[in-house]
Amino acid sequence: MQSFGKFLQSGDWKGEKHVPVIHAPEKVSAGEEFEIKITIGDAVRHPNSFEHYIAWFKVFFHPEGAKFPIEIANFNFTTHGEGDNFTDPVGATSAKLSKSGTIYAISYCNIHGVWENSKEIVVE
Amino acid sequence: MQSFGKFLQSGDWKGEKHVPVIHAPEKVSAGEEFEIKITIGDAVRHPNSFEHYIAWFKVFFHPEGAKFPIEIANFNFTTHGEGDNFTDPVGATSAKLSKSGTIYAISYCNIHGVWENSKEIVVE
Amino acid sequence: MQSFGKFLQSGDWKGEKHVPVIHAPEKVSAGEEFEIKITIGDAVRHPNSFEHYIAWFKVFFHPEGAKFPIEIANFNFTTHGEGDNFTDPVGATSAKLSKSGTIYAISYCNIHGVWENSKEIVVE
Amino acid sequence: MQSFGKFLQSGDWKGEKHVPVIHAPEKVSAGEEFEIKITIGDAVRHPNSFEHYIAWFKVFFHPEGAKFPIEIANFNFTTHGEGDNFTDPVGATSAKLSKSGTIYAISYCNIHGVWENSKEIVVE
Ligand SMILES: [Fe+3]
Ligand SMILES: [Fe+3]
Ligand SMILES: [Fe+3]
Ligand SMILES: [Fe+3]
Repeated sequence: MQSFGKFLQSGDWKGEKHVPVIHAPEKVSAGEEFEIKITIGDAVRHPNSFEHYIAWFKVFFHPEGAKFPIEIANFNFTTHGEGDNFTDPVGATSAKLSKSGTIYAISYCNIHGVWENSKEIVVE
Repeated sequence: MQSFGKFLQSGDWKGEKHVPVIHAPEKVSAGEEFEIKITIGDAVRHPNSFEHYIAWFKVFFHPEGAKFPIEIANFNFTTHGEGDNFTDPVGATSAKLSKSGTIYAISYCNIHGVWENSKEIVVE
Repeated sequence: MQSFGKFLQSGDWKGEKHVPVIHAPEKVSAGEEFEIKITIGDAVRHPNSFEHYIAWFKVFFHPEGAKFPIEIANFNFTTHGEGDNFTDPVGATSAKLSKSGTIYAISYCNIHGVWENSKEIVVE
Repeated sequence: MQSFGKFLQSGDWKGEKHVPVIHAPEKVSAGEEFEIKITIGDAVRHPNSFEHYIAWFKVFFHPEGAKFPIEIANFNFTTHGEGDNFTDPVGATSAKLSKSGTIYAISYCNIHGVWENSKEIVVE
């Protein structure tokens, strides 16, 4: 068995247009609804064409001390030039958490594979 | 053959907690990036539990005069109480359109089926 | 509000390469695990290229007499020529049903929109 | 940044009910259509209830020598007891590959996180 984990690439989003950027508060209250927004290539724009595009983001949350991560949301970006219309790789949703932990975002480019980022969040 | 279309339910979002609400500008410029945000139950909150939840939204765009609609985005809301964490049924993305048309949102509740809404958008 | 239902196209799968074909038994026992397989263009093959492809199938089940349909499965076909590799639009899963009803399949072509088919199944 | 890769769990599918099992030929011809079927818990059955279920499989292909993996398919299993109906975690599709490489399957349990498996395939 080979592990898929070796394909999860990362980097500085300022220079790398595939790294998902996680926008969320540093601190929220337990059970408070807050926005999680994932963008990509905030500094360097990724192409969006039939041949090359960001297809999806997945968002997971790992409560500190927990054994397993929980999938928060999945976003698919599905228009890449049909009739000259486009979906940009931006995905936002709302969540309510019960304790502190780490948010993970995974992005997929159909040509350049899977990329990841993480951000800690304090839940009081 | 029976058509699935008969299951697409609608209603006034002020009284019905399953109707997706489309938040988008009335008017944008061709090729301008703008936000499409889908919420649900803006007036009456939908439950979010293991047994009963909003699972996904799909967003389509139908350019006026076109024969077919184009899928803009798909959002899955995947946490319904695991470790007392929750994803709320809110989904937002960005798009760039080339001409005027109609945005459609479809939502799915695991107990109460598929619901829809639409909103016209002028592209100049 | 305009209804999305008008976009659900149908036709004879022998002549139309966008109509999903539902392969499932005519009759099963309640709680018996059986395969549901969705194919498309069984007689006329659909293109599979970066510019034109079948992106997904959704499968719903409507128990007879029920008010709402239930989503059984969602299949995304995600390779359309990357490195000369391809996913063909074939999706199969297993299900266990509790009563007779109708299986619905919906397919989406990025150029030719949404298509549907249905098949009755007797559950004893 | 913390890597999500550490959450990808594996194990012997004979004793572990979360490990996806990849059913595919050992060898195919380049461009030949063949079936990839993912099952889980072939020896030990996983629960399927509102509170605990296998939600999805993703399938990737890594051509040998390539830098990045390609997503082949995504399967969502969406019925977990609604009206006493169930989707079992079985997903199959068809693919055509251009060279030898490794197929990866990832599965997600809403309680026990992400699991993975891989299988080499020779393309002649
Ligand atoms: Fe890329
Ligand atoms: Fe509901
Ligand atoms: Fe087509
Ligand atoms: Fe489990």
